[in-house]
Amino acid sequence: MSDVKDNEIQKLSQDEMKKILKDTRQKLAQQQQLIKEKKLPVIVLVEGWGASGKGTLISYLIRDLDPRFFQVVPMKMPTKEERRKPFLCRHMEHIPESGKFVFMDSGWMEETVFDVVDGKCTKKELKQRLSDINVFERQLVDNGYLVLKIFVDVSKEAQNVRLQNLLEHKDTSWRVCKRDLDQQEHRSKYEKAFGTFIKATNSEKAPWHVIDSSEKALVELQVCHLLVDGIEDAIKRNEIPVEIPENPFPLVQMPKLADVPLDKSLTRAEYEQQLKAAQKKLKKLHNRIYKEGIPVVIAYEGWDAAGKGGNIKRLTSALDARGFVVNPIASPDVHEKNRHFLWRFWTKLPKTGHVAIFDRTWYGRVMVERLEGFCSDNDWQRAYNEINEFEKNLTDWGAVVVKFWIHIDKDTQLERFNEREATPEKRWKITDEDWRNREKWDQYEVAVDEMIAKTSTQTAPWHIIQSKDKMYARVQALNVVIDAIEAKMKDCNY
Amino acid sequence: MSDVKDNEIQKLSQDEMKKILKDTRQKLAQQQQLIKEKKLPVIVLVEGWGASGKGTLISYLIRDLDPRFFQVVPMKMPTKEERRKPFLCRHMEHIPESGKFVFMDSGWMEETVFDVVDGKCTKKELKQRLSDINVFERQLVDNGYLVLKIFVDVSKEAQNVRLQNLLEHKDTSWRVCKRDLDQQEHRSKYEKAFGTFIKATNSEKAPWHVIDSSEKALVELQVCHLLVDGIEDAIKRNEIPVEIPENPFPLVQMPKLADVPLDKSLTRAEYEQQLKAAQKKLKKLHNRIYKEGIPVVIAYEGWDAAGKGGNIKRLTSALDARGFVVNPIASPDVHEKNRHFLWRFWTKLPKTGHVAIFDRTWYGRVMVERLEGFCSDNDWQRAYNEINEFEKNLTDWGAVVVKFWIHIDKDTQLERFNEREATPEKRWKITDEDWRNREKWDQYEVAVDEMIAKTSTQTAPWHIIQSKDKMYARVQALNVVIDAIEAKMKDCNY
Repeated sequence: MSDVKDNEIQKLSQDEMKKILKDTRQKLAQQQQLIKEKKLPVIVLVEGWGASGKGTLISYLIRDLDPRFFQVVPMKMPTKEERRKPFLCRHMEHIPESGKFVFMDSGWMEETVFDVVDGKCTKKELKQRLSDINVFERQLVDNGYLVLKIFVDVSKEAQNVRLQNLLEHKDTSWRVCKRDLDQQEHRSKYEKAFGTFIKATNSEKAPWHVIDSSEKALVELQVCHLLVDGIEDAIKRNEIPVEIPENPFPLVQMPKLADVPLDKSLTRAEYEQQLKAAQKKLKKLHNRIYKEGIPVVIAYEGWDAAGKGGNIKRLTSALDARGFVVNPIASPDVHEKNRHFLWRFWTKLPKTGHVAIFDRTWYGRVMVERLEGFCSDNDWQRAYNEINEFEKNLTDWGAVVVKFWIHIDKDTQLERFNEREATPEKRWKITDEDWRNREKWDQYEVAVDEMIAKTSTQTAPWHIIQSKDKMYARVQALNVVIDAIEAKMKDCNY
Repeated sequence: MSDVKDNEIQKLSQDEMKKILKDTRQKLAQQQQLIKEKKLPVIVLVEGWGASGKGTLISYLIRDLDPRFFQVVPMKMPTKEERRKPFLCRHMEHIPESGKFVFMDSGWMEETVFDVVDGKCTKKELKQRLSDINVFERQLVDNGYLVLKIFVDVSKEAQNVRLQNLLEHKDTSWRVCKRDLDQQEHRSKYEKAFGTFIKATNSEKAPWHVIDSSEKALVELQVCHLLVDGIEDAIKRNEIPVEIPENPFPLVQMPKLADVPLDKSLTRAEYEQQLKAAQKKLKKLHNRIYKEGIPVVIAYEGWDAAGKGGNIKRLTSALDARGFVVNPIASPDVHEKNRHFLWRFWTKLPKTGHVAIFDRTWYGRVMVERLEGFCSDNDWQRAYNEINEFEKNLTDWGAVVVKFWIHIDKDTQLERFNEREATPEKRWKITDEDWRNREKWDQYEVAVDEMIAKTSTQTAPWHIIQSKDKMYARVQALNVVIDAIEAKMKDCNY
């Protein structure tokens, strides 16, 4: 965790230090242009003891930076509402766009350590969080982020002196909070919790840098140095494709699309009767998941004109309007494209007890983005695992995750396209892009087969829904959702 | 508030009603395409008594709508954090994009009425809020929104029956909250507060529709009708330019840019001494505004290469990194362009005690958007007043609002452009667009003169900062900010 360079720095004379500091600061200022050019997003996470000088350190680091290219995010403990989302949600929300810095004044470490100390996080939950954090940080790095993690250390005695100094003046006394005093009183508890956290999350791609804060100038020099080196390394690293791990998730065996029959159908009478029954059931379940605080994520993918819209509608009409949201996913906006590809989905996750439906999803990465070349080969090849990890995070959190591929054949699509063009009030549904995509049907089929094969995890398998008969598809999708929620209820003994 | 049509509806037979209802629903479903085409954003605000059936009504309205084109927003009372922003902030956040519906399950009415009843809103604050709401709604309508406001009424007796019914079954009893029971106990207090609110915000452009909820079918028909008619009317209305009111804000007399001298400068020694002194002062003030909870909004506009970036940097280096944010404003993203032009600024306002700096601002509307034809003439002509209202909202809230025009002449700009092109590490700062804008200098000068004349309100005047000498400009801007904060402190007896 400590660098050889740091040891070298400590041996320097005052004058030598001043010179190095000046050079390093100048280099950092110059690097701004570089990170802009190379589209490098930089996260500097500053964690540490109360009154250890985290704020001062950040102020120091940003002094020569153009304020348009960085943001400082001071994180407090999560509110009750924030605790209704996955732990990492609110941290993910603040990651920078490419070419920009975010300095986080504490983050996922402080939240976890304080929760542990406060008895708000069981051992099992801690284990889960640590594992989630490692995945989160590794994904950021793999997606081109520099994640620089600093822990500002201070001895119990030194912290005490600092707190007393702050308390003595009315201009600064309000800066001392209960937590700081608690750290004095229960030092060893915090030490242990910080230590466990650092050990468990000290990864190769995002290592911890523990900095002793006793000499301010030294802290500044060390961190400035780390940042400058980190940026250089990250830019070099980003030129090399990321190694893709073997899939570690147990998978469900799935058929190829070509082998999926499309013969199922319902009569209008069967449809009406079965739809009504399923909707009634789902309505009741929606009440129950709300009461039990179970989040539900439903992902819709499928061929154009397969009937996703109508299918979703039959689902939502069974739900209380206040308890669900449908997220239509188009191509990403600029601020979305400039972040981790899952960012825009992380920020649309439901609260506990709520349902989020995605009309097109994060699987765009391995379909349209792959086929249109909107991302690199390494990006989409890596995405299967990243997506599996994302969904694992959701199911571990307690969410029901249901994924639909709404399926039709090529002839059915043509029929529906033609019908749409012939019907004035449906014409808006069909665009030139749909026709262009249709031309690539075979390429898409290869991509979809690979996607379904590689991301049908046991906890979040794909459901291929035959939709040549839309009525059958609607009832079928409803029943899959019902089964998934009921299985969850049973699992949790609700 | 009640329509003749409603009275007509009440006289209908069951069969007639069914037919009308069917037709109206069908029309609503068809209108989806229309609002998409016409880019109409639709806000349906459903307010009313507890257990009056607001949720059921919304569920009914959305039943035939494509879930990709609407969102239901259930609003709770604001959290402590949300109360640190202007009252309307969190409501503004949820307005729809053009071509989409948002159904709000209670909103700014409920928040206000409950605060009044709970004694959390003084008479003076109420007056302020009501006035803000009227401006907010009128601006939405003027910017093309349909704002349909429904109040679902229920008698005390009927509410009681509904609450008892809910309480009887364990599946529904959790739906009854303390507030509902409080409304039973203190009916007249709520009645008065609802009444006052409705009366004060029943404007021509966004009138209230009070619907008696005793007959469910009738409620649904009435509201469906209102929505269908509202959409038709809004589309027609949006074809006509909005009448622009006389400026109601007291203005400060400002010079034309051509008459602003550019002769001020500082020696390096003066600069360093004055900068240091000003930064020290601002640093102390930053502590104080944090303690007193005063929000500060600083807006930077100016010619390209006038030195905005460096100016902002000298300001931010005096601030605690955790207490400010710099918002660089470029051309709007798609999701921003599809909303009220002030939306992206509303959502970037500071919390109490924090500083938000805007590097380019909402004034883009009356400069680049005007000159490049990115909005209609009526849009930018109307914007002076809309911006004055927006800033008035901020100062009424208690914010310090400082607006800078960083000023140079045409020759100085050319010099700096050439210097940027000649200096490798500055070259990224200069783009083809800068050269193109330069060609339009004279047109910009007309627009800026008009902008400064029309938006230098007494509460938020422009400060034209001479920046031929950047050192002078930096010290000057710092001093303006210091003066503004100190004046505020004095005003509030801090």
